[in-house]
Amino acid sequence: MTIKEQLKHKIDNKTKPLGSLGKLEEIAFQVGCIQNSLSPKITNPAMLVFCADHGIADEGVSTCSKDITWQQTLNFQHGGAGISVFCRQHNIALRVIDAGVDYDFPEDAPVINAKIAHGSKNMRKEPAMTIEECELAMKRGAEFVKAEVGLGCNTIGFGEMGIGNTSPSSLLMHYFTKQSIEDCTGPGAGMYGDKLHYKKLVLKEVSEKYAPKSPLEALATFGGLEIAMMAGAFIEAYKQNMLILVDGFIATATMLTAFHIEPRIKENCIFSHSSEEFGHKHILEFLGVEPVLNLKLRLGEGTGAAIVLPIIESALIMLNNMTSFDEAGVTTIDNEKA
Amino acid sequence: MTIKEQLKHKIDNKTKPLGSLGKLEEIAFQVGCIQNSLSPKITNPAMLVFCADHGIADEGVSTCSKDITWQQTLNFQHGGAGISVFCRQHNIALRVIDAGVDYDFPEDAPVINAKIAHGSKNMRKEPAMTIEECELAMKRGAEFVKAEVGLGCNTIGFGEMGIGNTSPSSLLMHYFTKQSIEDCTGPGAGMYGDKLHYKKLVLKEVSEKYAPKSPLEALATFGGLEIAMMAGAFIEAYKQNMLILVDGFIATATMLTAFHIEPRIKENCIFSHSSEEFGHKHILEFLGVEPVLNLKLRLGEGTGAAIVLPIIESALIMLNNMTSFDEAGVTTIDNEKA
Repeated sequence: MTIKEQLKHKIDNKTKPLGSLGKLEEIAFQVGCIQNSLSPKITNPAMLVFCADHGIADEGVSTCSKDITWQQTLNFQHGGAGISVFCRQHNIALRVIDAGVDYDFPEDAPVINAKIAHGSKNMRKEPAMTIEECELAMKRGAEFVKAEVGLGCNTIGFGEMGIGNTSPSSLLMHYFTKQSIEDCTGPGAGMYGDKLHYKKLVLKEVSEKYAPKSPLEALATFGGLEIAMMAGAFIEAYKQNMLILVDGFIATATMLTAFHIEPRIKENCIFSHSSEEFGHKHILEFLGVEPVLNLKLRLGEGTGAAIVLPIIESALIMLNNMTSFDEAGVTTIDNEKA
Repeated sequence: MTIKEQLKHKIDNKTKPLGSLGKLEEIAFQVGCIQNSLSPKITNPAMLVFCADHGIADEGVSTCSKDITWQQTLNFQHGGAGISVFCRQHNIALRVIDAGVDYDFPEDAPVINAKIAHGSKNMRKEPAMTIEECELAMKRGAEFVKAEVGLGCNTIGFGEMGIGNTSPSSLLMHYFTKQSIEDCTGPGAGMYGDKLHYKKLVLKEVSEKYAPKSPLEALATFGGLEIAMMAGAFIEAYKQNMLILVDGFIATATMLTAFHIEPRIKENCIFSHSSEEFGHKHILEFLGVEPVLNLKLRLGEGTGAAIVLPIIESALIMLNNMTSFDEAGVTTIDNEKA
């Protein structure tokens, strides 16, 4: 039997009606396939949170002060942010990485310095990054993933912080899915009503200004430093055959970019939740995937990818620890579906 | 400020955009209200699984052998069933209670003996229980909850095992919601096609045979021993002001029954998931509640109520451990919604 057949057989013979653990069965099957194992395990899970500022924020596409990027970056590592408390809850190693925050952290600040630049360029005027900057960010992202593998990590999530970063995400989504800017753009942290209308006008103008000829060029043009670093991390996590927990809108738009460079990446991804940020549902539909949770989250930071971990673990515990009908001495439930 | 205002203020001042943790914020608010505390906590969570057989199973409303009830009851306590492994995962104390299994367990079997009878009566011929049996079952259910409170438990879930017990659940749902038998009846563990049609015919006949004049009489007529015991447990858990985690179709139909005896019980309930069993969504709509998870589960046993626990804990960790904007030195995010 192939590993897929063996996994199916193992799941179907657990002491429960056929299919009665729904998505948990699908998750167990997927992780078993990734790990080529009938007893897959999560080891040393890690969360890499990439932080950067965005030139496009100068165009008023966010209601928030750019200062929040560096303040929250410190808050992550000091332990008080959403991603901090959820990573502690689930023993996920949290790495807070400065990919391009527009602020000089003190040398003793507990932030990993991988700064490519003091924020991306304002893409209303010029591409967000040069190809070289983008490639360097991707390379550094890959190196962070390799470092986690070296520590025994086989399951990884990615988060982000960057005031203004729903805008590059919407532009990347627009570029790859061909959906209208209207369908790709939401309020982010607070752009409602007229502000949202204005944000869409700016993004439409930016989208029409460039015609990137490759996924890499699109990423450099429309992305951001934390997004490019995360894209590199996604691709490396696939190469390392890790289980990848995908967070909300920004992480999924980044995964979508990585997917256009390495399509097989999708096999290793679990989509943690359906974000309230407008556009996220459409990317999930474009990718043909169903998220695990629907908790109306729209915080980013990797929070959904952290919160979902115990559900993934429940799936693996089902596969590894539930008894079969034979083992338990339980009469087989009539599983036939008419 | 009232506790509600204080909770809202505390949640809104966490370092995140307003409302961006969605259902986690709603859960934290609800549990804070129940516990009348700005720092609510889950202590010594417990799962009571009530097991019983059903006379109506003799009418062919289930594809499964009745032997599975006692076999699975033992499997729960031996640690190999779904509910066993998920309770171990989350340190939930699991109590497996024989409310009326049609089997004499050996005296050394690790099952709590609260047997009222060797299964309920066949309600196609006579009421499932006498009023006295029903009241005795409810009283015992209440006592089990009191015992958990004595052990410091403030959060409780209820599960069930009983071949045939979707039928009494559908009948109780039909009685209380006035929805048609058609809308209340699903395939359970395997009644598809013609079998499901036959099940509906039997339930329609039973529903028309009786006209109970009170919720108690309905419970005695259409219920089952594990359902009556669980109903008593629900009501006592409310009286003890516990947080109650409601599982799938059968547990929710039982909660619906308890709700018609003590309507305020709803305030203390978190509905863990939306079951795949047909009818469950309609009870949730009738109650006007939204479940936390939608994982396509339909196993029962309390599994959904166990799996949801870490999500509830995430909500409380948000409330208790995330920093406020002031504490973190983060500029307030413009939270205004146009």
